[in-house]
Amino acid sequence: MLPLKNDRFLRALRCEPVDMTPVWMMRQAGRYLPEYRQTRTRAKDFLTLCKTPELACEVTLQPLARFSLDAAILFSDILTIPDAMGLGLYFSEGEGPRFERPVRSKAEIDKLAVPDPNQSLSYVMDAVSLIRRELDGKVPLIGFSGSPWTLATYMVEGGTTKNFSKVKGLMFDQPQVMHTLLDKIAQAVTAYLNAQIAAGAQTVMIFDTWGGILTSRDYLGFSLLYMEKIVAGLTREYEGQTIPVILFTKDGSEWLEEIATTGCDAIGLDWKLPIGKARQRVRDKVALQGNMDPCILYASPERIREEVASILANYGNGNGHIFNLGHGIHPEVNPERVTVFIDAVHELSKKYHQ
Amino acid sequence: MLPLKNDRFLRALRCEPVDMTPVWMMRQAGRYLPEYRQTRTRAKDFLTLCKTPELACEVTLQPLARFSLDAAILFSDILTIPDAMGLGLYFSEGEGPRFERPVRSKAEIDKLAVPDPNQSLSYVMDAVSLIRRELDGKVPLIGFSGSPWTLATYMVEGGTTKNFSKVKGLMFDQPQVMHTLLDKIAQAVTAYLNAQIAAGAQTVMIFDTWGGILTSRDYLGFSLLYMEKIVAGLTREYEGQTIPVILFTKDGSEWLEEIATTGCDAIGLDWKLPIGKARQRVRDKVALQGNMDPCILYASPERIREEVASILANYGNGNGHIFNLGHGIHPEVNPERVTVFIDAVHELSKKYHQ
Repeated sequence: MLPLKNDRFLRALRCEPVDMTPVWMMRQAGRYLPEYRQTRTRAKDFLTLCKTPELACEVTLQPLARFSLDAAILFSDILTIPDAMGLGLYFSEGEGPRFERPVRSKAEIDKLAVPDPNQSLSYVMDAVSLIRRELDGKVPLIGFSGSPWTLATYMVEGGTTKNFSKVKGLMFDQPQVMHTLLDKIAQAVTAYLNAQIAAGAQTVMIFDTWGGILTSRDYLGFSLLYMEKIVAGLTREYEGQTIPVILFTKDGSEWLEEIATTGCDAIGLDWKLPIGKARQRVRDKVALQGNMDPCILYASPERIREEVASILANYGNGNGHIFNLGHGIHPEVNPERVTVFIDAVHELSKKYHQ
Repeated sequence: MLPLKNDRFLRALRCEPVDMTPVWMMRQAGRYLPEYRQTRTRAKDFLTLCKTPELACEVTLQPLARFSLDAAILFSDILTIPDAMGLGLYFSEGEGPRFERPVRSKAEIDKLAVPDPNQSLSYVMDAVSLIRRELDGKVPLIGFSGSPWTLATYMVEGGTTKNFSKVKGLMFDQPQVMHTLLDKIAQAVTAYLNAQIAAGAQTVMIFDTWGGILTSRDYLGFSLLYMEKIVAGLTREYEGQTIPVILFTKDGSEWLEEIATTGCDAIGLDWKLPIGKARQRVRDKVALQGNMDPCILYASPERIREEVASILANYGNGNGHIFNLGHGIHPEVNPERVTVFIDAVHELSKKYHQ
């Protein structure tokens, strides 16, 4: 593998000095890009796009051709693991992901096997290797997974949900069954992320999209605990390179102190908390990634630059900041506004790194 | 008006001693009750149910006949105000509320008039008077409104939304136009709640369902500021009785200290933060209402009692706690579990009030 031409992102994750604040966007490969929508038409459905390494590679690289991004992220879906566990993932138009065979009983959960990522998920590893090769050292590649709790919500509910009644009902009434499920998923995620690292992922990120719907007690016991187990089981050095780990709990700003002690290198932030306050709370123990409200990208170029300046000033001088949105970019955003955003981060951050 | 037979709720709001912790539930009159669904069939649609004082009164009283609740809450909808402003509210089956004429431009917002609650919203005041009369002093009656920010999200988006792109776009790009809109809504809410008080509401509550989707800066400037203006304009004493005010921002636990300084008497809590921690943060300046996860009601009677005991213990000894769910009760809950919940609060709380 070639040495990295741009290691700003990895340096910031290690809280080392950089020339300017690195930036990337959650869901940077996606529907807001016309070239993505074009590639999408070549796959019969969304899942086929994820399962075809050449297409996954193509859409992963698209935003890098347009914008001065400091990292690439594997194009995939968090639900590949439950799919590999045999739940039968499909995407129905306009309704989001669904499972043909959700798991709700002790018997169904006991029967689940932890998948070998190099067997049933080999298409992901093929995509990672291909993307890494095509990137040619331009920027580092991020691999990812959903958190055990977040994957469990889909596996128990059978799809997206408003009230989380089934998964919370299971958690409250049969906590041991829930722990069995989460433990199996945590084993699967650990193996999956380690396989991504072996295939070429230079950083891994765990998305806990639904940890924020829990009480503090339940977040710590049913979500964060399993992310901590995963962090402990990950390959942290591969071929002489350290592999940083980022944890992102949407609506999780209540628990920053606890997340910072899991052994992760960085915390992803949504937009709720000012990043300077988050920084004080974690006392530079970890790097912080975030935290612009994605809706700012609907505003004028001037307003976007103003918001970037405000977040940079709020973080202040020093290392350990990776600029990002607080959630995935919305499909309706005009790509020209993204150029304004990315360029503003680089231009306006230089003074904080002198 | 007769003196109150049960003033536990009002005493707790004033942080005075009580014999046991008072309890009521957000959306306690609603779809989880078969008798509600029966009454609902007698109105041609949901809005007609809200606009017919006899039916609104009937469903308001239904949960009180079943459960030992310590307060009644007016059955209505938060969108009555924008409807009275001429936006044309309707409910399409399965899609939630919609407006025929959303407001998105400066011209449309400038044209909006603040409605006289005793004219276009007189059906609400008729319902309040009727309910108060029918309650016959059994328990106090809570009146309510949506917060200006929450109402604005529906008025600009035209209905429910996932990304809040239009309302946030307006806020970011034309903050002055947004402030004009919020100011008009705040005037309307103030007049509306004062009319409810004059009609017989003994406490008022403001529901800020969508304040929690904002950054801290925007929450303070675009949501809390307008709730504070309303609190300052409310009738706080009526016919010799003090009228307490409760503010509830869903997903707002980040801002408890700021909410506590608005002049409100109590803060509604969702389930995210342990109530003991919330109590420490507001230092007994205000009463606290909450904070059980509504999904606990899917669990076994034993588990429900355990959770009630845990929240009571977490709050600890002393006054100023009104037990409630952290959000509205879900339509799928079995009413028998509600009996278990309500009775558990009364039974298990006695020892904290000796």
